[in-house]
Amino acid sequence: MGLRETKMERTRQLIADKAFELFTAQGFATTTMEQIAAAAEVGPRTLYRYYATKESLLLTFVEQKLDAALDVLRAQPEDVPLPEALYKLVDYVLRTVAESGDRIIAVYELAWRTPSARAQLSDKTSHWRRELATEISRRMGGRSAELAAALASANTMTVIEVSIHNWVSSGGRANMRRLTHRALDLLREGAVPVPTPRARSAT
Amino acid sequence: MGLRETKMERTRQLIADKAFELFTAQGFATTTMEQIAAAAEVGPRTLYRYYATKESLLLTFVEQKLDAALDVLRAQPEDVPLPEALYKLVDYVLRTVAESGDRIIAVYELAWRTPSARAQLSDKTSHWRRELATEISRRMGGRSAELAAALASANTMTVIEVSIHNWVSSGGRANMRRLTHRALDLLREGAVPVPTPRARSAT
Repeated sequence: MGLRETKMERTRQLIADKAFELFTAQGFATTTMEQIAAAAEVGPRTLYRYYATKESLLLTFVEQKLDAALDVLRAQPEDVPLPEALYKLVDYVLRTVAESGDRIIAVYELAWRTPSARAQLSDKTSHWRRELATEISRRMGGRSAELAAALASANTMTVIEVSIHNWVSSGGRANMRRLTHRALDLLREGAVPVPTPRARSAT
Repeated sequence: MGLRETKMERTRQLIADKAFELFTAQGFATTTMEQIAAAAEVGPRTLYRYYATKESLLLTFVEQKLDAALDVLRAQPEDVPLPEALYKLVDYVLRTVAESGDRIIAVYELAWRTPSARAQLSDKTSHWRRELATEISRRMGGRSAELAAALASANTMTVIEVSIHNWVSSGGRANMRRLTHRALDLLREGAVPVPTPRARSAT
């Protein structure tokens, strides 16, 4: 990264930090772009160059964290067993929730109230799920890898979504790590019902 | 349903039928709302009362089929084992694909090209997944039902999505039913990797 990029990245981060401070302190709806610019000590034009809308401040945060989680998986050596490598990704998410709980709650509140933001978030997570599936498939190799990888990716995403959802619903008081481990246990123990035709032999 | 509602429903269906004929014959992008109105023999104002946009014609179709699939599950007697009841839902989707393949391919092509439609579709399927989870949870009952239900719902959705995706990629030539059954088998056989910490005892 060149000096100019480093400086831009720092400004981008500073704006996000200040914005989230304001969202947490006074709510997302009542915070204006002008207040964010003032808090970050940049002009409104600079602010708009980094973030076209208030919503994009929240969505960028989610995107960064999701990308970083994928990078954690990609950085695992090839000889690490896949379930273990996948757990490193989950663990990164758990640590992010522990560190940035306020931001995650802010994102959820936005998604709850704003259909357009919800749709964008939905789209982003679908995209992420496909990228995760690609990396899992690559690591699995073999014949039915693509199908199994898509299912593994969806499971991982669901465990994360369900745990975060329950955690946010508890106002951040539930034990996120315990929730996640319970979900993973259910999957591993085959305690999750799978659609099954009555006469399996007839399929 | 009263007479007026029946008539409106019939018009709505007729418009959708004619629109899909045009989409299939000449492509989605080149079909205009005026052409759809003319083919359905309604005025443009009537058309817009039923469907505000061309996109909504495709999205409404998906929504109707997803809702109908949920209704199939809800209609299963309470004593039907859950995996079997869930399979009835999957089977409904398989029959829909067999009957309305052209429409499904049209929806996919739209989603591929149009981010706003893709986001709406993403949002709809997320919503459907949550509704499916609610029904599964109700049928399961018990302590960890909510978590297991969310995972079962996500698996079911993924099996459907992955099968349809592969089927569309094959230009509608792959055996959709076989793809779906292979995915369900993988889940049932525990062939789908689950994130697992290295030292399970330490969790």
